[in-house]
Amino acid sequence: MLFMVEMDVNIPLDFDAEEAARLKAEEKAYSQKLQADGTWRHIWRKTGLYSNVSIFDVASNEALHDVLMALPLYPFMVMKVTPLNRHPSAIRDDDT
Amino acid sequence: MLFMVEMDVNIPLDFDAEEAARLKAEEKAYSQKLQADGTWRHIWRKTGLYSNVSIFDVASNEALHDVLMALPLYPFMVMKVTPLNRHPSAIRDDDT
Amino acid sequence: MLFMVEMDVNIPLDFDAEEAARLKAEEKAYSQKLQADGTWRHIWRKTGLYSNVSIFDVASNEALHDVLMALPLYPFMVMKVTPLNRHPSAIRDDDT
Amino acid sequence: MLFMVEMDVNIPLDFDAEEAARLKAEEKAYSQKLQADGTWRHIWRKTGLYSNVSIFDVASNEALHDVLMALPLYPFMVMKVTPLNRHPSAIRDDDT
Amino acid sequence: MLFMVEMDVNIPLDFDAEEAARLKAEEKAYSQKLQADGTWRHIWRKTGLYSNVSIFDVASNEALHDVLMALPLYPFMVMKVTPLNRHPSAIRDDDT
Amino acid sequence: MLFMVEMDVNIPLDFDAEEAARLKAEEKAYSQKLQADGTWRHIWRKTGLYSNVSIFDVASNEALHDVLMALPLYPFMVMKVTPLNRHPSAIRDDDT
Amino acid sequence: MLFMVEMDVNIPLDFDAEEAARLKAEEKAYSQKLQADGTWRHIWRKTGLYSNVSIFDVASNEALHDVLMALPLYPFMVMKVTPLNRHPSAIRDDDT
Amino acid sequence: MLFMVEMDVNIPLDFDAEEAARLKAEEKAYSQKLQADGTWRHIWRKTGLYSNVSIFDVASNEALHDVLMALPLYPFMVMKVTPLNRHPSAIRDDDT
Amino acid sequence: MLFMVEMDVNIPLDFDAEEAARLKAEEKAYSQKLQADGTWRHIWRKTGLYSNVSIFDVASNEALHDVLMALPLYPFMVMKVTPLNRHPSAIRDDDT
Amino acid sequence: MLFMVEMDVNIPLDFDAEEAARLKAEEKAYSQKLQADGTWRHIWRKTGLYSNVSIFDVASNEALHDVLMALPLYPFMVMKVTPLNRHPSAIRDDDT
Repeated sequence: MLFMVEMDVNIPLDFDAEEAARLKAEEKAYSQKLQADGTWRHIWRKTGLYSNVSIFDVASNEALHDVLMALPLYPFMVMKVTPLNRHPSAIRDDDT
Repeated sequence: MLFMVEMDVNIPLDFDAEEAARLKAEEKAYSQKLQADGTWRHIWRKTGLYSNVSIFDVASNEALHDVLMALPLYPFMVMKVTPLNRHPSAIRDDDT
Repeated sequence: MLFMVEMDVNIPLDFDAEEAARLKAEEKAYSQKLQADGTWRHIWRKTGLYSNVSIFDVASNEALHDVLMALPLYPFMVMKVTPLNRHPSAIRDDDT
Repeated sequence: MLFMVEMDVNIPLDFDAEEAARLKAEEKAYSQKLQADGTWRHIWRKTGLYSNVSIFDVASNEALHDVLMALPLYPFMVMKVTPLNRHPSAIRDDDT
Repeated sequence: MLFMVEMDVNIPLDFDAEEAARLKAEEKAYSQKLQADGTWRHIWRKTGLYSNVSIFDVASNEALHDVLMALPLYPFMVMKVTPLNRHPSAIRDDDT
Repeated sequence: MLFMVEMDVNIPLDFDAEEAARLKAEEKAYSQKLQADGTWRHIWRKTGLYSNVSIFDVASNEALHDVLMALPLYPFMVMKVTPLNRHPSAIRDDDT
Repeated sequence: MLFMVEMDVNIPLDFDAEEAARLKAEEKAYSQKLQADGTWRHIWRKTGLYSNVSIFDVASNEALHDVLMALPLYPFMVMKVTPLNRHPSAIRDDDT
Repeated sequence: MLFMVEMDVNIPLDFDAEEAARLKAEEKAYSQKLQADGTWRHIWRKTGLYSNVSIFDVASNEALHDVLMALPLYPFMVMKVTPLNRHPSAIRDDDT
Repeated sequence: MLFMVEMDVNIPLDFDAEEAARLKAEEKAYSQKLQADGTWRHIWRKTGLYSNVSIFDVASNEALHDVLMALPLYPFMVMKVTPLNRHPSAIRDDDT
Repeated sequence: MLFMVEMDVNIPLDFDAEEAARLKAEEKAYSQKLQADGTWRHIWRKTGLYSNVSIFDVASNEALHDVLMALPLYPFMVMKVTPLNRHPSAIRDDDT
């Protein structure tokens, strides 16, 4: 089941730079693990912004919630969650 | 080069049903041709809405404009265009 | 899996009254059938408005989409869909 | 008498973690007591957000106000209150 | 129990003038009957607008809904409903 | 001459509690004095919010401005001011 | 007593051109009469828009309402009314 | 050439009171000098708000920018700039 | 003196196609004449939209207003006008 | 390929003045280098605001992102990115 999640990241100007770097590294590792297992199907940067558009493939709303809440940068993010469906015109079944 | 395009379709209540059906069939054929050639990389329905989220892979802004303007349902659509980049955390090259 | 759906109904002033009455009767029958089978868990009127807040319990985004698209009054509605989770403080399991 | 209350929780990044944990525990206990006595009829998490949708069943606006003002996390919340009615299509009387 | 209701009236330019006049007369009579019985506690015009701010005193959300739905001009109105409480600084009991 | 004033109060989380209590007491005394002399005609709490809806009866815009600027909690408030008129359907002259 | 009124004019594309011309002439005559008697203190066009910013000097909210409601183009306008005061830094008394 | 400038002033609660008083005095002197030389044609307070509506008469956009940037309170202001024209219905030439 | 003007064009679905084509041809001719004489410095299409971003170089707000009001498609447009200045970092004098 | 980028700059009131001056000097040098090489085609100040409208000419979304992310003042900016096309009515080829 697919969801679009749009994430805007706002790290305060005076946040500790080292801690920020550590959180970003954790975020990247966490994201890549989920991409590798097929949960985080796509991630794109919005051009010019510290924001991404992501597509998640999860078993349920609960599963999506747990994945997002575990994001190392979650406390710095504003989230927009949009449930998606396979489009009747789609030619690929695995874009369900 | 990737773009997210969000399309909301609004066909007036009193629009001729036959003509609407014809336009939707044309739209589907047009979309599937572009999906097949790799231009229209993804298309998802927003759950519960007559709206879609699409990812286009085009050579330029000009190319995207031409593709969108040729949509048979374009006159009934409200469009939102967001340029995208490969995300530094992405593990797949073809999500450029 | 639960979703909140907020529906605003706008029937044009000059829409045929008899046809509107017929559609509303169909809508009511359709809603009650889905309430009876547990799909449409709750429906409340927003006080003073021709709008409702509903809770749906469905197997997937696809299932929700199909249920909503089949609403007899769908062409007259503006929809807002919000995916929901069981809340960690909830004391009732069936509010999953 | 039913009300939908949507609560967004925003605890500042630099708020004392222990105090936050204490307040959340109090909030949970308070919520569960009100759920048990039928005042707080439903509580759902909005997927991916630190927000909930709740349904309250109270005797009056005054009663709702008192319940909400006593929330341990109230100072961190943005509230949206929507009065609700039994829907004419509802099949259950106790969703009044 | 008090509610503020803000009503914006929009009668289409081409609506039959005689029918509009008849509806406005009915609206006035209906409003004055409710003012006389204490249900419609206050009604003020917003300066320069075809809009009013009203205070209703009703037994329940249901009662308010029924009162509003019976407004002769309801189909031409956009409504905003805000539940109110007696303010702790109020000196008059009947502003409950 | 009547005005509706909607006031949202936002006292920062870390504001000195004693000073806040002192300001609230002053605010209440100030409000009650103005209610007693007929300037502050009505004050209602918005249910669930730290906001009020008030009706002022003043001789001029200048008079309203001076009254509002002297509110002890003014620096913590967001104000919305709406000029009002007697409504042609009102049955009470003193709601002018 | 001063008020800023911002008026946006929207005459439908298919409105009778002759009737529109007649209404605009009436509007101009009405505006100029009020300018001459000091009620309509200023009127400026917003550059590039069919909108104006006006300053009215009236005895009361009631007086402003009556002046605005009598505008020949009122049914085609969207109004925004802002009460104004003499500014403490103003050097001219007649900008009261 | 005329411009409407709407200025909202937000001085932080914890800003040094003496420094604020000094800046306000400078602001007033600066404003009055510009009023005296005809650049700042009008300034009105928005009733109940720490905001003003001003009309500037300047030779160019550049000139307006320089005037505004030199406002002692500029760093605390949110600005909205609207270019204005003489209105075809205006009876006074000097309201150009 | 420079202004950015953003124009969104909305021609109704049922507008006469021949008349629309005639107006678009006139619009193009008019635009090109103004581009040639340096008034309409730049015009770009917003990708995927029937909207443009334009830069005008005019002697005054009045001049801009007259140029825009004479656009053959003006009645179908929503305009946003933003006055611009030479930027202190600009390296080209002719970007004024 | 052209993009419009609108940048609003917000440097906190208490940010170190010397550091701000250093960053602004770097920003200016960086901007002028990009203007000189044709990447940053235009930059205009929005009148009265600490905001600019810029036109970038880049090879791809990726290139634009890299250019923007390297802005010395990027952490203080809110960005809006709009992809642009040559307009069919444009008379200059190099405004592609």
